Amino acid sequence: MPIPDSVLAELQSLLGARLSVTQVDRDQHGASESYHSAPPPDAVAWPETTEEVSAILRLCNAHLVPVIGWGTGTSLEGHALAVKGGITLDMSRMNKVLEIRAEDMQVSIQPGLTREELNTELRATGLFFPVDPGANASLGGMAATRASGTTAVRYGTMRDNVLALEVVLADGRVMRTGTRAAKSSAGYDLTALMVGSEGTLGIITELTLRLHGQPEKIAAAVCAFPTLEGAVDCVTATIQSGIPMARIEFIDEVSVRAFNSYAKRDFPEQPHLLIEFNGSEASVAADAESFGALAEEFGGQGFQWAATPEERNALWKMRHQAYPAQLSVRPGSTAMVTDICVPMSKLAEAVAAAHEDIAADGMVGPILGHVGDGNFHSALLVEPGNEDELKRAKALARRMAERALAVGGTISGEHGVGIGKRALMAEEHGEAWAVMGVIKAALDPNNILNPGKLVPDRG
Amino acid sequence: MPIPDSVLAELQSLLGARLSVTQVDRDQHGASESYHSAPPPDAVAWPETTEEVSAILRLCNAHLVPVIGWGTGTSLEGHALAVKGGITLDMSRMNKVLEIRAEDMQVSIQPGLTREELNTELRATGLFFPVDPGANASLGGMAATRASGTTAVRYGTMRDNVLALEVVLADGRVMRTGTRAAKSSAGYDLTALMVGSEGTLGIITELTLRLHGQPEKIAAAVCAFPTLEGAVDCVTATIQSGIPMARIEFIDEVSVRAFNSYAKRDFPEQPHLLIEFNGSEASVAADAESFGALAEEFGGQGFQWAATPEERNALWKMRHQAYPAQLSVRPGSTAMVTDICVPMSKLAEAVAAAHEDIAADGMVGPILGHVGDGNFHSALLVEPGNEDELKRAKALARRMAERALAVGGTISGEHGVGIGKRALMAEEHGEAWAVMGVIKAALDPNNILNPGKLVPDRG
Repeated sequence: MPIPDSVLAELQSLLGARLSVTQVDRDQHGASESYHSAPPPDAVAWPETTEEVSAILRLCNAHLVPVIGWGTGTSLEGHALAVKGGITLDMSRMNKVLEIRAEDMQVSIQPGLTREELNTELRATGLFFPVDPGANASLGGMAATRASGTTAVRYGTMRDNVLALEVVLADGRVMRTGTRAAKSSAGYDLTALMVGSEGTLGIITELTLRLHGQPEKIAAAVCAFPTLEGAVDCVTATIQSGIPMARIEFIDEVSVRAFNSYAKRDFPEQPHLLIEFNGSEASVAADAESFGALAEEFGGQGFQWAATPEERNALWKMRHQAYPAQLSVRPGSTAMVTDICVPMSKLAEAVAAAHEDIAADGMVGPILGHVGDGNFHSALLVEPGNEDELKRAKALARRMAERALAVGGTISGEHGVGIGKRALMAEEHGEAWAVMGVIKAALDPNNILNPGKLVPDRG
Repeated sequence: MPIPDSVLAELQSLLGARLSVTQVDRDQHGASESYHSAPPPDAVAWPETTEEVSAILRLCNAHLVPVIGWGTGTSLEGHALAVKGGITLDMSRMNKVLEIRAEDMQVSIQPGLTREELNTELRATGLFFPVDPGANASLGGMAATRASGTTAVRYGTMRDNVLALEVVLADGRVMRTGTRAAKSSAGYDLTALMVGSEGTLGIITELTLRLHGQPEKIAAAVCAFPTLEGAVDCVTATIQSGIPMARIEFIDEVSVRAFNSYAKRDFPEQPHLLIEFNGSEASVAADAESFGALAEEFGGQGFQWAATPEERNALWKMRHQAYPAQLSVRPGSTAMVTDICVPMSKLAEAVAAAHEDIAADGMVGPILGHVGDGNFHSALLVEPGNEDELKRAKALARRMAERALAVGGTISGEHGVGIGKRALMAEEHGEAWAVMGVIKAALDPNNILNPGKLVPDRG
């Protein structure tokens, strides 16, 4: 159903040039970083204030026009696609740092600010925001997706680092959740309910985030292993031993080949761990020694330490380029990126099984992941429009997800549900998925907020 | 409205002797640890299985009979009082450890198990469950209240340590939330919604908890300070400096006097900090040295180290007896225990203001708290039935709460809402309190789950 002209006119008078119905703007906000596709939204709006977001939602709610939040468009599960049409709210103009409260290790920001922009602002304070999903995503989008990434093993996910929110509800009411206190028992944890709700319960217009002290010493390294099992078992042993890793990433030999070719490196084509320690000089040295002993036990060899900040940045930049590097293995391809997360004791068998399944199918699917959390990804490379490949990739992804569920894991460690994981939600959640639908219907009775995502279809 | 005879008969046939309508059982489950009072429930049930809980709820939902969960009865805000009558579900017979998964550092338990019972079971595993609210509460009750306590500064609250739940919904459906994976982005965080919902959204019948490694070394100490401000400023500086305290508790001179008299100790009658470090031999020594330097800066003196486990246990046992010790200051009294939590930078002024307000009123109100989180309590001692004192205590508590809200804090750091904090919910949450009511109405349309608590009255 197209947006009624009267609604467009009212939005135009509210936003002026910050409302667009041009094909180029619509197409830009109808694109996906992965294999998902959908028609573009009917219009794109760039609000600048909470009041504008509120006015837009009030109007859209009254006229049953879908509203989809948009951060930087880096989601991998089609979260921000306008599958039911409507207006995409591009939050990029709401990107201010509102207040840094260094003594409380907190910052209040607008949702369009990206994590790299925030950390640039924080540089002089001795503090930083640790959650690092790789992409330079908007912090509102990261909260909406409950993102995590390479540092979650040490600093937690967005669940752990969002203290408070301002959220505009479907009918335009503005709600504030959480406080600036470190903890609270005063009622339902609506902050946690909103984090990970993917724009289906409200539009985030302000976030209060926990900050962390910049570590005195950071040391990073790469280490090759003769076998996938050796590398993954080393991770499990490391986590079980309690060594406080800041990052511990697995990359398989296919990913290493992709890195080498894309970033012009020459790592041995073997499974690797990329690791980082944060702490004092003394604690980092002690942690590195403990880890080194474990790595040796599991066949780790050829440690390369990134001693300078430049070398370290190069190392993590390489890791952050994993996705384009993987795509470059097969030029012109797109990817279905799997995202299961399992209990640590089940990690080695889950990675090995994924590896074998992919090999048996013959598909190209490099594996890497935030293995310190039990979370890993394979990027199943498919040719756009090749239905057979898409079908095979979906079958592989489903098998991985079912294996995760069978051992008490989850279908999504950090990428979220969007449209890509929706078909698996009933299997993971059972009755709880219906309850998510009940909550959605109660808070968004007209189903205008990112419809067609996350919860079951209505009625 | 009394429970219909037909419902009682059906419950009796389901539960046999595990349903009671005797005055003594009802009175036992109509009592409160603090100043709250209400008529007892109409009946008490002791379910033994999830299926029984489900059958009870299905029946009560059909006949509009209120159902109130009961752990060990140690809540301080009247959470488990049957203010609208109905049946109290005493969960103490569902107290099994279901599965310890040491390699994943997780345990699955039933809700009636207490935290001390769990830690006894875990002793041989090298793991422990850290959340410690003082009372030997049931873990289901701790989850329902989003409890925390002395160790939250290091290990987090129940929010951070509950991974998954089984919950029976108002209509008897059984829902499982969360997984055994360390993190998940698969949909709304219903675990976090249930933790802290105080039995108003469902009855918890199983919990999966995160465990932590027993530290290699534990060191505890008490340290006196010449002034309240010195002690509290020392805490703020300690937290800001990033020293990883396992516990850091403030007790004012009135509380010290209470301890001395109740536990036969002879601490100087000055403000004190009780502290604990967990870690390796080396890290504990380094942390203790860093803290010692800070404490000295703020006038700390007369460190007494608890070197042996026995001395350490005696120290924390004393802390855990704070509540009876405080009550003993005024024999026959009961207490209104305040529970505000503020950002660290506002802690010193909040504690000082509370101290001055209490002194100005002339009421006895010893102060102590989990100051590493910005959370502290005053136990305002009132004579049962003395309306004037109750009114004064309420006025003092409200002033503290309003001061907390004015600096971005919360009316409850860890005790929850129950009936005691309900009058302040609108002030803290505004629109969000209405949203809590909408969620409650959607999940419990007949309002049978702990009615009269936490959310606004309906209609």
